[in-house]
Amino acid sequence: MERVEIFDSTLRDGSQGEGISFSIEDKLRIVKLLDDLGVSYIEAGNPGSNVKDLTFFERLKSVRLANARVVAFGSTRRAGIRAEDDRNLNSLLSAGVDTAAIFGKSWDFQVTDILKISLEENLEMISSSVSFLVSHGKTVFFDAEHFFDGYRENREYALRTLECAADAGASCLVLCETRGGCLPDEVYEITKAVKQAFPRMRIAIHAHDDSGCAVASSILAVRAGATQVQGTLLGIGERCGNANLSTLIADLELKMGVRTISGPLESLNSVCRAVSALCNINIGANTPYIGSSAFAHKGGMHIDGVLKDPRSFEHIRPESVGSSRRLLMSEVSGRALLMKRIEKIKPGLAKDSSEVIHLMETLKAKEAEGYQYEGAENSFDVIIYKELFKSEPFFTFVHYQTIGSLPYADPAGGASHTALVKARVRGESAIAGAEGKGPVNALDIALRSVLEQFYPSLRSVHLTDYKVRVLDGADATASRVRVLIDSSDGVDTWSTIGVSSDIIKASFLALSDSIEYKLFKDRRR
Amino acid sequence: MERVEIFDSTLRDGSQGEGISFSIEDKLRIVKLLDDLGVSYIEAGNPGSNVKDLTFFERLKSVRLANARVVAFGSTRRAGIRAEDDRNLNSLLSAGVDTAAIFGKSWDFQVTDILKISLEENLEMISSSVSFLVSHGKTVFFDAEHFFDGYRENREYALRTLECAADAGASCLVLCETRGGCLPDEVYEITKAVKQAFPRMRIAIHAHDDSGCAVASSILAVRAGATQVQGTLLGIGERCGNANLSTLIADLELKMGVRTISGPLESLNSVCRAVSALCNINIGANTPYIGSSAFAHKGGMHIDGVLKDPRSFEHIRPESVGSSRRLLMSEVSGRALLMKRIEKIKPGLAKDSSEVIHLMETLKAKEAEGYQYEGAENSFDVIIYKELFKSEPFFTFVHYQTIGSLPYADPAGGASHTALVKARVRGESAIAGAEGKGPVNALDIALRSVLEQFYPSLRSVHLTDYKVRVLDGADATASRVRVLIDSSDGVDTWSTIGVSSDIIKASFLALSDSIEYKLFKDRRR
Repeated sequence: MERVEIFDSTLRDGSQGEGISFSIEDKLRIVKLLDDLGVSYIEAGNPGSNVKDLTFFERLKSVRLANARVVAFGSTRRAGIRAEDDRNLNSLLSAGVDTAAIFGKSWDFQVTDILKISLEENLEMISSSVSFLVSHGKTVFFDAEHFFDGYRENREYALRTLECAADAGASCLVLCETRGGCLPDEVYEITKAVKQAFPRMRIAIHAHDDSGCAVASSILAVRAGATQVQGTLLGIGERCGNANLSTLIADLELKMGVRTISGPLESLNSVCRAVSALCNINIGANTPYIGSSAFAHKGGMHIDGVLKDPRSFEHIRPESVGSSRRLLMSEVSGRALLMKRIEKIKPGLAKDSSEVIHLMETLKAKEAEGYQYEGAENSFDVIIYKELFKSEPFFTFVHYQTIGSLPYADPAGGASHTALVKARVRGESAIAGAEGKGPVNALDIALRSVLEQFYPSLRSVHLTDYKVRVLDGADATASRVRVLIDSSDGVDTWSTIGVSSDIIKASFLALSDSIEYKLFKDRRR
Repeated sequence: MERVEIFDSTLRDGSQGEGISFSIEDKLRIVKLLDDLGVSYIEAGNPGSNVKDLTFFERLKSVRLANARVVAFGSTRRAGIRAEDDRNLNSLLSAGVDTAAIFGKSWDFQVTDILKISLEENLEMISSSVSFLVSHGKTVFFDAEHFFDGYRENREYALRTLECAADAGASCLVLCETRGGCLPDEVYEITKAVKQAFPRMRIAIHAHDDSGCAVASSILAVRAGATQVQGTLLGIGERCGNANLSTLIADLELKMGVRTISGPLESLNSVCRAVSALCNINIGANTPYIGSSAFAHKGGMHIDGVLKDPRSFEHIRPESVGSSRRLLMSEVSGRALLMKRIEKIKPGLAKDSSEVIHLMETLKAKEAEGYQYEGAENSFDVIIYKELFKSEPFFTFVHYQTIGSLPYADPAGGASHTALVKARVRGESAIAGAEGKGPVNALDIALRSVLEQFYPSLRSVHLTDYKVRVLDGADATASRVRVLIDSSDGVDTWSTIGVSSDIIKASFLALSDSIEYKLFKDRRR
């Protein structure tokens, strides 16, 4: 196999995923992104099923794509009417695309028990629907729904449905593993049998992940002769989702030497990030190739190995898919990583210097308290700065007080809390008050207001994310909490942490670290 | 294959996952849960690597397990010393377990380029380390690290490492797919070759998910003769994680007819939920078998099919793994679920009664605010009680105020906050003050103290868990937060929710619901 076509159904099957809902603008942007990536086909929706998709296909008519073809999705004609009278089939003709995918039943149980028609009528529905679209000049992909279940229970009938589609002029037989229940070796055997039965037809695999095997089943179907792989870029879809195309593209390209997309593979990560933002989902940290942890190393031995030779614990070069390596700071990661972090701040310090030993001890003590610097490395940078540059502190915190109430003191303004912060800066005392939505918001505003008088550069700092994790929930409201804060000054972004059984104090510690990091960073510039 | 052993490494390999960090108490609870589920082996940690694991193994000595054996993990001896002088190997002897897993290098590149020793010395390290443990009566599993990469590049050497371990008395050869880069058909071929070379040895597969194929590779290894599957219950682990055992257990049991765990398969979902809480991670909605979307149907055609016959779009019965079907985004399904809940509180209410319609509207409005009653159903029960039994409320909240400070007002006592709550009960006003670790703790104590005077049964209520989730982190400290609280009175447990941009208010709402639920529950008794 030299080339495998990628067929993306994010906008059709993907939109069946729980919590997924696209505006027409989202859809247009996703089409553009997938075209840039260079997939072969984009299944854009079902113009016969709803007005939104109809409007979208209208809008698509004026969009010019460089690489991909847009596919409209529908089904075989309804029982009891002629193909030319079927509203859904006619909507595929007017959708303005040259390729249509229509699904039909390949599992006899679905025909007799769900559609409640005769097996013969179903075959005729397939033949006449494909013929109708072909006679109007369309390229037709036949989605053999439940094909694998059908093959298992009534092999002869399942193959006959494919035969009807092929004889009527379909260009591609799509073997749908609709329920996601088959294991990959079975998918391999059945795909191989189909390829033998239809040696000259293009075969596609359309797998779902209900057994956790959608990617593997797709790979094995390719080994068995499929030349088109269907799925969704991020694996979204009904129930457990569709085959994850980002994983499949990388597996096919990097492991099997098969060409898939016409755009650069290095753009995979960034295109996935952009699509995930439009889908309003997070890419799971563990997602192969593109997740934030995909090339993150934590164990000391792993970090050591990767620093000696990345091949040790990386199956591919992260850059080849646009990702990058991360070495995580933790008690298990060892001194090597700490040294790398220190190198950036003060190069040339010896591994066994008293400062390094002291920092290592601090790291361990902090972790015992519940601190975890993975994802909040900059709080540890502040500790390094303080250890290595024992200069005058930027500010000394004196005192804060927060007052909250329900009903709110100022119900119209929406502020529930006030905060008061006092600090000493360059020998002067400064105090400021503020109000906000919740105690942390009020405290954040008050702390900045104290310090901005002395450090105007803090005006550019804003928080971009705030996360709270309860560390030991069993102690309920007296549990320790870990607060993570992401900050940005428009140029850099950084992450800090605070831990306490008092959520306000934990938040304050993270806020305070964020500000100190910014000031250290500016001083070194 | 009739039976496959499940080897769980959540506490060892799983702890290498980004963001994962266990307290000793967490670990003990996870051991208990895995034992209840009935896995064969629990890899509990590395007693030679850190003090925390050492203490944990000490604690484990007094824990009696019904099904599982605890395994201690370590490595072959260091280069240049004798096995009996190796600190790590000796710590495996004193860990108080009868089974030890030690890893050694099977990839020649790792020996020469990372360890920087001769190929011969590595073989001797394997032999002498296994022999040493066996001579002290331990059952030894040999983890052949990077086995598949090694086999690919120097087949003869990789097999020799296994031979050394087998000859020295190892009970099980663990084929580690350490980098996660192999595709499943290659894993199958190599495992088959090993089984042929060592027909009488027990073979285990240890796969990582970097190519998105860990589950499939494990399944194919079983087809090739492996009788032990290693992974982590929820798939957590370094980089993209380990093979997900929850998926594998269900695949093996339900698709391959292989026995795996000794506990009921129906407990899979609940055990996974409990372990995820201790890991402080969410189970991805799309996770096969146990994710909240795994049996969720959204498309109209799918819902229709499932209502006619669940086999249409479900590959297994959800109940067989303790999960349940969910029908999404449909007025019909929404109401059906609501009716189930109402039936429990007031049977016989008509589906189209004004109360049901009003509750349906309330549910929608609350969800739009960010409420989500999955996992906090009892807050919705409180709404149902209030709608259906329009009796005098148990109490009317009047006002609260919280004051926090740093330094703490009472540093010796550890209290950072005070709270004051006023409420009206049965025509009387009552007010109480309290202090606590953080504002929510103080508020919790004050609220109870007001109400216990009137409702002494509240004295038995205590909170068992407290979770905070930031709903829209991009607004940073002004983001909305969702607080979930679990409560117990020693007989029942219940869960309630509060949502607000003010974390104190969100917590108060959940606390207040918890108390109202308890009072409604008592009244119905």
